[in-house]
Amino acid sequence: MLQVQTKTRRGRSARREARLTKNFDSLPALDRGLPYIDLMTDLQLHKMHDATMRILENKGIEFRDDESAEMWRQAGATVSGHLVKIERDLLLKLISTVPSSYTMHARNPERTVKLGDGHTCFVPAYGSPIVIDLEGRRRNATMEDFNNFAKLAYMAPAMHMTGGVLVEPMDISVPKRHLHMMHSLLKYSDKPFMGMVLGRDKALDSMEMVKIVFGKDYLESHTVMTSLANGNSPLVWDETMLDAAKVYARHNQAMLFSPFALCGASTPASVVGMMAQISAEALAGVAFSQLCRAGAPAVYGQWLATVSMQSGAPMAGTPEICHINMLMGQLARFYKLPMRCSGMCTSSKVVDAQAGYEAARNMYGVLMSGANFVLSTAGYMEGAMAQSYAKYALDIEQMELFYRLGKGPSFADFDSALDAISEVKIGNHYLGSAHTLENFETAFSMPAMMDHNSFEQWSADGELNANQRGVNKIKKMLNDYEEPKLDSGIEEALLDFIAQRESEIGQRAL
Amino acid sequence: MLQVQTKTRRGRSARREARLTKNFDSLPALDRGLPYIDLMTDLQLHKMHDATMRILENKGIEFRDDESAEMWRQAGATVSGHLVKIERDLLLKLISTVPSSYTMHARNPERTVKLGDGHTCFVPAYGSPIVIDLEGRRRNATMEDFNNFAKLAYMAPAMHMTGGVLVEPMDISVPKRHLHMMHSLLKYSDKPFMGMVLGRDKALDSMEMVKIVFGKDYLESHTVMTSLANGNSPLVWDETMLDAAKVYARHNQAMLFSPFALCGASTPASVVGMMAQISAEALAGVAFSQLCRAGAPAVYGQWLATVSMQSGAPMAGTPEICHINMLMGQLARFYKLPMRCSGMCTSSKVVDAQAGYEAARNMYGVLMSGANFVLSTAGYMEGAMAQSYAKYALDIEQMELFYRLGKGPSFADFDSALDAISEVKIGNHYLGSAHTLENFETAFSMPAMMDHNSFEQWSADGELNANQRGVNKIKKMLNDYEEPKLDSGIEEALLDFIAQRESEIGQRAL
Repeated sequence: MLQVQTKTRRGRSARREARLTKNFDSLPALDRGLPYIDLMTDLQLHKMHDATMRILENKGIEFRDDESAEMWRQAGATVSGHLVKIERDLLLKLISTVPSSYTMHARNPERTVKLGDGHTCFVPAYGSPIVIDLEGRRRNATMEDFNNFAKLAYMAPAMHMTGGVLVEPMDISVPKRHLHMMHSLLKYSDKPFMGMVLGRDKALDSMEMVKIVFGKDYLESHTVMTSLANGNSPLVWDETMLDAAKVYARHNQAMLFSPFALCGASTPASVVGMMAQISAEALAGVAFSQLCRAGAPAVYGQWLATVSMQSGAPMAGTPEICHINMLMGQLARFYKLPMRCSGMCTSSKVVDAQAGYEAARNMYGVLMSGANFVLSTAGYMEGAMAQSYAKYALDIEQMELFYRLGKGPSFADFDSALDAISEVKIGNHYLGSAHTLENFETAFSMPAMMDHNSFEQWSADGELNANQRGVNKIKKMLNDYEEPKLDSGIEEALLDFIAQRESEIGQRAL
Repeated sequence: MLQVQTKTRRGRSARREARLTKNFDSLPALDRGLPYIDLMTDLQLHKMHDATMRILENKGIEFRDDESAEMWRQAGATVSGHLVKIERDLLLKLISTVPSSYTMHARNPERTVKLGDGHTCFVPAYGSPIVIDLEGRRRNATMEDFNNFAKLAYMAPAMHMTGGVLVEPMDISVPKRHLHMMHSLLKYSDKPFMGMVLGRDKALDSMEMVKIVFGKDYLESHTVMTSLANGNSPLVWDETMLDAAKVYARHNQAMLFSPFALCGASTPASVVGMMAQISAEALAGVAFSQLCRAGAPAVYGQWLATVSMQSGAPMAGTPEICHINMLMGQLARFYKLPMRCSGMCTSSKVVDAQAGYEAARNMYGVLMSGANFVLSTAGYMEGAMAQSYAKYALDIEQMELFYRLGKGPSFADFDSALDAISEVKIGNHYLGSAHTLENFETAFSMPAMMDHNSFEQWSADGELNANQRGVNKIKKMLNDYEEPKLDSGIEEALLDFIAQRESEIGQRAL
């Protein structure tokens, strides 16, 4: 119902909205202009597929939830307790009803995005309990931080979604936290978002709040959320995640099925071996979504860290993660499923060169993989333990650069550029040529957070490093923020719902 | 000629060499395991080729050297003064004799590398007049810095060459500088290297010094150097570079023909337009090498910065540079030529997140492009104005990661990894499995310069950022350095030659 779009706007409010549109432009989902990269030969791909199917047929996978196991039994799988063995014919039949792409509708239709079939969305980091704040302090995240990151995602052109658990607001008790996070996502941004997934009740509350904003009927035919179900490698889907997945899939809302894999610890110490395992895990999750509702959108994905066999530490941004992302992209195209990876990941504790190397190298591999839902594209630090404001500022600009990279080069002005070559005298410059004057503002990216000035100019400007520039940028963004319009009746209804549920939860907790 | 390899080694010296072999392993040239990425359709490729040919046929290109212009005239080009117009038949005939790959022989045969046909070599940064030293001071580079970077390249496994002008040793006068740089390259490392290119005499001196080490006859049939000829966009090759190119090509030594392009200033403000121009420039240079000696190895390349149309600053690491690198890689494969790009480039003044983002993003594109000679893979700062010791330490490890990435995933242990999946109980870990014990040391990269520890461990270790770890690493490397063996007769002959030439140059200068 999106009443916000149908009201007449006048005077100050209209001017403010015009300003907003101008200031806070958002990019559509990336419509990929780069070719795909296939690391596997056809033979290797089929060997990988066959190995994956044999894992599900012979070893099986545990769905640690009675209802889910029963759903599998009724669908024709061989079920013993929570152990489910799935023949490939059944699995392939189930995933065949998953749409290869879907649209996520935003409460502002201009922010509606397509995902899959060559379309990619960038989404901020998810779930950190800690923030590195604007004073450089490392501390527990709060609801204020959560609200800030919702505002920042709203303002960032290359963030296609506001995100989900932007940080864990540790100052709000766990039973009530999801209500405030959902409220923040709905209030401070008008982009698509992720629902809460810690069990059935939180998913149902999320659905109720979404119904208040979008209307119940609208939701039956429109996907507005994509939520995250983490799998437990090796080969376990647990009740909490399955309960949330059931709620969302039955409401035609999209789910990411993402094994959470520590490569070498919860998988074999082998890139191709672990690929077969996590593919089996993700496919089983995606297939399960179709038992809940055939045709519900679902995403095949993973979260990965390779484990250092020296220290036991999970490592972000290693070449092996790049390989796995690319392998999984090829498998996603084979299965005709949208795919999820993680983007600007780093293990670094500070926003230093390590953070830059790891994040950019990892994200480039994700871009090459063809992933459609890229989580963790802004703010990610310490292998997801912490979220940095400064890195968020740098990352959102990096994602604009990756977006441009992913569009590929344009041949539209080729002939006029050749004319410029004909006209300019050998050894001269092009600064005054007609083609240059026409194209200079758009031909090349001009990232503002990256300092390209001479040493002398940079020195005169205060010798700020990227981390310091990031802090300043966030301060300015939060200062410039203006809230997207939300009907006051909707806002009231949301607050009423939260109050009612808090009271129920509080009573139940007694 | 390579006497160093034929002498008997005994006692302390032999033990020392055994240690060296152990400590300072070097990787062979990368034998690419990733598929290529072609940004142009066949139609676009042929349009690009045709446009490039038309530039050389109709507008022409200046070879600002009488002898070179005369060589073109004799070959059948249309020459007017220094302006050379080259028909496509002539150009394509000339480049057809360029080998698609060649071998660079090192004085230690274990360091000999192949370049082209899917083989890629990583080479440190080139030509900075400034260093950021181990105390963090930004100052003029000296000969001691040059020697240090020769030692470091020798010790770095993924540096396939020592490099060329590792830094500009500003404490040695320009007329004599090349002699000391060549001596350092020959003495402190045993990897292949780049010759000096500022005119005929410096190239001839380089050749003489190389003859002392390798023997005159050996050089006639063995390429030991690849040297850099920068072109001046738009469409100029100058006398200094051509004179050096003539010397090297006539001696069967390889040349990089690299237009030095400020995109938008010395080229059209268009990715595809500038591609046509710099391809024409590079192809004309490569073709020229075959006028000097048919069959001489030559590399098609470029150095690029996109120019900020806001500030006029050259920008490193932009998405447009990635596109151009990939386009040029596709053209190199079409022309069957080895290709040169620049690797870990950044505009940053400090080793911060900007340095990491730009270098890694740029290098990833270079890797995808299929470039065979990757210059500037270590130390590069400030758009080539400065060289950082700390970044050098980080970059050489990053290049080991890129090397591994470029090899692609291995399927060799697929079946045994699948066995491990069969064996490990659902929900358990793989740490004790036979496959893990066999593969844990090699399955995943474990970069030592990247800190993957928990915040608490990192904090206990002194809270060092990547820049600080880089400084410490270089201090340790320079402390651990041991010189590769060079026959004392050769060393004496080199010093005699330098003394003789210095005396001649000194007299001539009077």
